[in-house]
Amino acid sequence: MYFGYFNGTIAPTDQLAVGVTDLSLLRGYGLFDYFLTYNGRPFQWDWYWERFQNSASRMHLPLPLGKEETYSILMKLIERAGGQDVAFRFVMTGGYSPDSITIDKPNLLILTEPIHPVPPIQYEQGIKVILDEYVREMAEVKSTDYKRVILMAQAIKSAGASDLLYQKGGQISELSRSNFFLVKGDRLITPNQHILHGITRRTIIQLAQTDFRVEERALLLSELYDADEAFTTSSTKKVLPIVQIGELTIGDGYVGPKSKFLLERFNDLIKSW
Amino acid sequence: MYFGYFNGTIAPTDQLAVGVTDLSLLRGYGLFDYFLTYNGRPFQWDWYWERFQNSASRMHLPLPLGKEETYSILMKLIERAGGQDVAFRFVMTGGYSPDSITIDKPNLLILTEPIHPVPPIQYEQGIKVILDEYVREMAEVKSTDYKRVILMAQAIKSAGASDLLYQKGGQISELSRSNFFLVKGDRLITPNQHILHGITRRTIIQLAQTDFRVEERALLLSELYDADEAFTTSSTKKVLPIVQIGELTIGDGYVGPKSKFLLERFNDLIKSW
Repeated sequence: MYFGYFNGTIAPTDQLAVGVTDLSLLRGYGLFDYFLTYNGRPFQWDWYWERFQNSASRMHLPLPLGKEETYSILMKLIERAGGQDVAFRFVMTGGYSPDSITIDKPNLLILTEPIHPVPPIQYEQGIKVILDEYVREMAEVKSTDYKRVILMAQAIKSAGASDLLYQKGGQISELSRSNFFLVKGDRLITPNQHILHGITRRTIIQLAQTDFRVEERALLLSELYDADEAFTTSSTKKVLPIVQIGELTIGDGYVGPKSKFLLERFNDLIKSW
Repeated sequence: MYFGYFNGTIAPTDQLAVGVTDLSLLRGYGLFDYFLTYNGRPFQWDWYWERFQNSASRMHLPLPLGKEETYSILMKLIERAGGQDVAFRFVMTGGYSPDSITIDKPNLLILTEPIHPVPPIQYEQGIKVILDEYVREMAEVKSTDYKRVILMAQAIKSAGASDLLYQKGGQISELSRSNFFLVKGDRLITPNQHILHGITRRTIIQLAQTDFRVEERALLLSELYDADEAFTTSSTKKVLPIVQIGELTIGDGYVGPKSKFLLERFNDLIKSW
C-alpha cells in the first residue's frame, strides 16, 4: 500500500482527495515534480528541491513547507512503504479558490508511487518517437500542463511509437516528459531552450564531461540526419536510446555504444547512491 | 448551501472531493462549462450542451451522461438550491489514471454556485483591460487551462485593470474568460479565430442582426484606434463596456449608446427566459 501526505496528514493514497474548488481542477493551475529513491535515499534531492522551489516561485505559489521539513516527510513516507524504493510525486496547486479564479493558499500533495521501470527490451532495441509541431508553454516550469501528449496518445500508438518529440519552426526542444540528446562523434548535443531542465539531463551532462564535448544549444531538425545516436533522459527512462524519429532512422538503427556507455555510468551512479 | 453532482451522487459541494490520481490534478487534463439559470431555467441550454459535447469530443473524453439525463440532474440541483437562480459549472476530467498519464474513464462534476454579478458601477463607467501577447492553446475548446490569467493577476491589479485582452502578432482574439466586440458606426466586429465560441457572444450576434452589420473576422490591434465603442461578453458579464485598453482610450472614454442598447436587449431576453 502506498501513502501520501496532504496538507499535514499522511494517509493511504486511495484515501486522499482534493476538494472540488481546487484551482488545478477548475483552472489547470498546478505544478509538480517527480523523482525516485535509490537505496532508500531520494536521488539528487538538492537539485529536485531547488527546481520545485523555482517552479513554485515562477507560478507565484508560496511553499507551505521548508526543505528540512519536507525531507522528514519523505523519510516517513519511505518508512511507510516498507523500506522499498519508491517514486515521489509532488503536486502543488493553486488551492481552494473563493471565486474559482483567485489563489488563496496552495495545496501540497506528496505521493509515493510504485516505480514503473522501462521494459528492458526498450534499452536493447531503442524506441521510436514521432515529431510533433508544438512547444510547451513555460516549459522550464514543471506545470501540470500535459494536455498535448494525452491528446496525441492515439496518434503515438497508431505510429507504433513511444512518445512525441516536440519541434517548432524546425527547432527541437524535448520529448513530452523527458529531455533529448544527440551524439555526433565525441559531441553530445542537447537543446537548452523551451525545455524542462531535467535533473537526469543535468546528471548525464555531468557524467559525460570527461568523455564528450557537451553542447547545450539550439538544436535543429536538420541535425538529425547525420547524427550517430540519439537518446532521451528522465528519472524513469534514465538513458533510453531512440533509433527512429518519424520516418528517419537514427545512425544505423541500432542502439549505439555511446548511449550504452552513458546508461552504464548512470547505473553505476545510482547503484552507489 | 450549494449542491453538486459527482459520478452519480448529489451532495453538498463542500463534501465533494476528487481522488488524487485524477488527470486534471496530475496533468491539467480537463474541460468545463459554465452557465446561469434565469427564472429557474438554464439559459441557452441547447447551445451549452452542444458546446460541452464538442469540447468533450475534441478532448477524446466520452460523455458519461446523455442530454436528457443531464437536464434532469440540473433540475434536481435547482430544486436543492431552493428555487433561486444559480450558476452551473460542469467539470469533466481525464478521470483516475492507472499510470498518471493514460485516460481510463472521465470524471464528471456538475456544481451549482452562487451567481456573482458584475458590480453595477462597471456597467456605468466601463472597465479597463490590458493587452497581453498570448493566444490560448485550442481556444475553441473550453479546457481548464487558465494558467495565464492567474499568473498575470498581479499585473492586472497593478494596472488598475479588470482583465487581459489577448493579442498575438497584432491580431486580437479574446479576453481571458470572455469574448471581445468593437463598434464602428453601425458595424459590430468580433474576432472569429483562436477564440472560445461564447454562448453570450452568439446570443448578442443574434440580437444585433436587425440593427448592426455584424462582422465575424480577424480583428487587428490597429483597428482599436478608430473604434467608437468596445465591450466584452460572457454569461456573467453579459455586455460589459470596455473604455480603456492599456494606454488607449476607446472612443470618448465613456460607455457608448450601442453597448447600452445591446445590454438592454440582452436584459430583455433574460427577463422573459
